[in-house]
Amino acid sequence: MSMGPQSLPIGVFDSGVGGLTVLRALREALPRESFLYLGDTARLPYGTKSPQTVERYAKQSAQVLVDRGVKLLVIACNTVSAVAVETLREQFGPLPVVGVVEPGAEAACAATSSGHILITGTEGTIRGGAYERAIRRRRPGAVVLGQPCPLFVALAEEAWTLGDVPKLAARRYLAPHLDADGALDTVVLGCTHFPVLAGVVQSVVGPEVTVVDSAMTTAGAVRSLLEQLGLASPNPVPGQLALLATDDAERFARVGSGFLSTPLRAEDVELVDL
Amino acid sequence: MSMGPQSLPIGVFDSGVGGLTVLRALREALPRESFLYLGDTARLPYGTKSPQTVERYAKQSAQVLVDRGVKLLVIACNTVSAVAVETLREQFGPLPVVGVVEPGAEAACAATSSGHILITGTEGTIRGGAYERAIRRRRPGAVVLGQPCPLFVALAEEAWTLGDVPKLAARRYLAPHLDADGALDTVVLGCTHFPVLAGVVQSVVGPEVTVVDSAMTTAGAVRSLLEQLGLASPNPVPGQLALLATDDAERFARVGSGFLSTPLRAEDVELVDL
Repeated sequence: MSMGPQSLPIGVFDSGVGGLTVLRALREALPRESFLYLGDTARLPYGTKSPQTVERYAKQSAQVLVDRGVKLLVIACNTVSAVAVETLREQFGPLPVVGVVEPGAEAACAATSSGHILITGTEGTIRGGAYERAIRRRRPGAVVLGQPCPLFVALAEEAWTLGDVPKLAARRYLAPHLDADGALDTVVLGCTHFPVLAGVVQSVVGPEVTVVDSAMTTAGAVRSLLEQLGLASPNPVPGQLALLATDDAERFARVGSGFLSTPLRAEDVELVDL
Repeated sequence: MSMGPQSLPIGVFDSGVGGLTVLRALREALPRESFLYLGDTARLPYGTKSPQTVERYAKQSAQVLVDRGVKLLVIACNTVSAVAVETLREQFGPLPVVGVVEPGAEAACAATSSGHILITGTEGTIRGGAYERAIRRRRPGAVVLGQPCPLFVALAEEAWTLGDVPKLAARRYLAPHLDADGALDTVVLGCTHFPVLAGVVQSVVGPEVTVVDSAMTTAGAVRSLLEQLGLASPNPVPGQLALLATDDAERFARVGSGFLSTPLRAEDVELVDL
């Protein structure tokens, strides 16, 4: 077995458990790769913090992963992806750094015919406008709308992904955009919590609208980057998984089990201090 | 007009905007009093942090209010009330310090006939068990159940207090307790966000069940304490209100308007550094 950089794990970083939806997509797309995940649960949420603070936290968290040895860094957090990817590239380059915003924007532009795209996310993500800018760079004439869906975060953490409550909440957030703009053909799930609600969102927007899951598109971007850089794991066996968190391993395991679609116990989560 | 301690404002402290429901109840109960409110919005939520961290944050926040001059300190935060009231009394005594848990427990014990009480709150509040302990001290035989209702926080912050989504969410959280335990006659709203959902909760539990709003009961406790200590304002005119926050005055004003039932602008909120 090679002990070169190809055998190192991929580092995945999020402010909490939401990034586990990205980790799930990564593990499905790249079953031979090993992963080292860090959730900065002690300092979440990042979405309400200043960009300077988010950059500082992101550097500290990334340093933990880099110190343990990773071959690529995935920023599985929309807030950090929006404000700190360039800073992390400067700090840790030539280590490849992949965020979730650019792959999500790329997939939205590939999916849309009409050019009318709705971004869903936290208040901070929508207010920051990172998806809108990333989409307009690729398609200057795009009509990009934003809808903060903070209730989706709570629904995802409660694992209320079926039934009336999530469906009515999704309708309340999304129906005005469907009615107002018959041209809307693409909805981006622009928050790492939202992929577990993809089915509900799809049922509300209908089959004619493409729902872009930035977790899945990020996993695709990481796979193609590993191939381009010759960094794919040479190991024929399934990769390993290690989970780190900065607080409350019990809650991380409980809420995270749904996001990762894998049962987790608190003992599976190593606490680290930042 | 007296310039003695009676004329000083009452200090109110919360981890964010939720405590504004307590401030609203205080202003209604004590219209002549002035209030100085601090929301530590930069460091919320407290509910997921260790007791040591919560104590440290609470001391720093209380110090800001004490330095500006207050005659009484209200801890309008269930998490801080549960873990730090004694510490704050030691640090700032003889300044009177009132939390929300003891008045809520007192009101629940006064309301219940059957002794079967359901506490609703955040995961941290329910797990911490402070209401249960406070109720059992007063009524050792009480049957105290706990139901975390994290979605209520998001609903309150979205101001979704009417319609199907809050009603179905309340039913999902509360119906099992109503069915399982026909003796339940009292529900405590054990989170500062929940009073704006009191109507929804009451409609789900039915008219036979008393819904205890710890914001209102805390306001009653403060009023009686001011009278006992001779600290009530002698001013015949309506009191003043000053709002401090540690981050994001715009969001504080927007979300807080609903909690305080008073329109707020970002300019009404002074940012302070902790």
